[in-house]
Amino acid sequence: MSAVDEASAELFALARAGDRRATGRLLSLVERGGATADEVDALVHAAGTAAQVVGITGAPGAGKSTLTGRLLGRVIETGRRPAVVAVDPSSPLTGGAILGDRLRMEAAMHPSAFIRSMATRGPPGGLALALPGSVRVLAAVGYDPVIVETVGVGQTDVDVAGAVDTTVVIVTPGWGDAIQANKAGLLELADVYVVNKADRPGADDTRRDLELMLDLSTVSGAHHHDDVRPPVVMTSATSGTGIDELWDAIDGHFARLRDGGGLEARRTARVRDELRHRVERLAAVAIDVAMSDADTAALIDAVRAGSCSPAAAAQALYERAGRVHDT
Amino acid sequence: MSAVDEASAELFALARAGDRRATGRLLSLVERGGATADEVDALVHAAGTAAQVVGITGAPGAGKSTLTGRLLGRVIETGRRPAVVAVDPSSPLTGGAILGDRLRMEAAMHPSAFIRSMATRGPPGGLALALPGSVRVLAAVGYDPVIVETVGVGQTDVDVAGAVDTTVVIVTPGWGDAIQANKAGLLELADVYVVNKADRPGADDTRRDLELMLDLSTVSGAHHHDDVRPPVVMTSATSGTGIDELWDAIDGHFARLRDGGGLEARRTARVRDELRHRVERLAAVAIDVAMSDADTAALIDAVRAGSCSPAAAAQALYERAGRVHDT
Repeated sequence: MSAVDEASAELFALARAGDRRATGRLLSLVERGGATADEVDALVHAAGTAAQVVGITGAPGAGKSTLTGRLLGRVIETGRRPAVVAVDPSSPLTGGAILGDRLRMEAAMHPSAFIRSMATRGPPGGLALALPGSVRVLAAVGYDPVIVETVGVGQTDVDVAGAVDTTVVIVTPGWGDAIQANKAGLLELADVYVVNKADRPGADDTRRDLELMLDLSTVSGAHHHDDVRPPVVMTSATSGTGIDELWDAIDGHFARLRDGGGLEARRTARVRDELRHRVERLAAVAIDVAMSDADTAALIDAVRAGSCSPAAAAQALYERAGRVHDT
Repeated sequence: MSAVDEASAELFALARAGDRRATGRLLSLVERGGATADEVDALVHAAGTAAQVVGITGAPGAGKSTLTGRLLGRVIETGRRPAVVAVDPSSPLTGGAILGDRLRMEAAMHPSAFIRSMATRGPPGGLALALPGSVRVLAAVGYDPVIVETVGVGQTDVDVAGAVDTTVVIVTPGWGDAIQANKAGLLELADVYVVNKADRPGADDTRRDLELMLDLSTVSGAHHHDDVRPPVVMTSATSGTGIDELWDAIDGHFARLRDGGGLEARRTARVRDELRHRVERLAAVAIDVAMSDADTAALIDAVRAGSCSPAAAAQALYERAGRVHDT
């Protein structure tokens, strides 16, 4: 075992013994990627622990962080040790969720909970690579459930839905919000729907819109592995209304998945996705290396001069990139 | 030369002689991708013709198709033979641009012009692969300029900006429109700005907002190869106002690029981008093959059982994918 391996093992032992700074350090190593990340991940992966993983997503301003704070409180009450990975968007679209921040701070100071922010900056697909490893660290250290909170911004949602057991999509009352969620493809992703800010006008209309669309979607057979229409839960995160019902819906979905065999299928698909993302990353690195060498400049000149077709040049480059891992 | 090669050569000869159906057929072959596409592309590429390539982009409803129709008319007047590639989004967001459709139909029937729709459906990055080849076909057949019209939808804009000599971004009067364009990263892409629907209230404000942001952007040195602030042209596509000025601005940008050496740099970067997209596609195909075989299912089981780390499994898969092109 190398010196680095020993250091990783030491950090992991500290983290499992409850040292929060060691847990934070392990997460940083995994997020950074590269050889050390792989080493830490192999160690953590060998521990073989799995947590219930819940994704919470929705548009900016839907109340995700406040709702997540409430769920944390609810889960701590049941005697479990929850962790949150809050996936921050690259640009600060949300503004201040003051109550959400306060609830989160309270939970962060609670000895049973762990909160982590993760940036989506970095190369495209970086989140898809870092998220599974981060969830494994938190599970191996003893946190369960792990809640992944994301701002709903397209590809990020899809990446997160691929990395969790249960996806919760939050909408708020307002004309067309349910339709917007449908357009954005969220209907296909959600296992549980939340209409948050349910004390506002139009909440019942939004619920009805959602249920109508979900019924149509079920009829057409377009979605949902477990053949149960996703439940729609009404909440008010600021007052705390509906939080028990929401957690029951999340846990109910998880229990159905587990008992019906869907959980195994989902987790196998998740490993498949993770391997694909990792292989794509290895290929991208090899292509970067091949693109940046002097032979490539000569190939580009040949294409511009008309003496080599784009397809032939690409084939030559591809074969060169394929040799990177042999050297 | 194989039978297929002879057929491609025959089609190409017909297209160059002015047969529009042959041109359409060549474009279909190139769009479809694969071995025949590469063969046609090699033939066309060897002809060594280059056209002035103009990209037109903007939000749905900004008036792109009407403006493009007007530009077509203007270019035909100068005695040139323009072609349009209209990149259609996967979903019909635009509704009916009736005047745009009529202008386009007129141009399509004009013997000097050629209009083509291209879907963005298909695999991600499919447009980035098909667009350069389609532009090459149109240039080799004798069309110049080639105008690429796209609905402004994120990655498509970036792909199009990477495939053209001059990028025109259309905005319309309205509170915050210029700011939205800035947020979407369009300020960095545009070589020429258009405020269309300039007869509407707020057009001057939008122009001022744009110029202010462009000035700030120039001061910070953030953009623009040719060190000239992108011009802002006011148009009304429906009445035809400002079209001459717009074409002059587009042609002026192209002349500055050509005379200042920027055109060479841009086209070299474009070939580099195209080669990268092609190599990525070759790698993606090899990864698909490797992901779908029985050994991969065994690897996934090993990862789930904890006997193989995700990183080690990915490395094994990657090496297997790398061997695809050797067999």
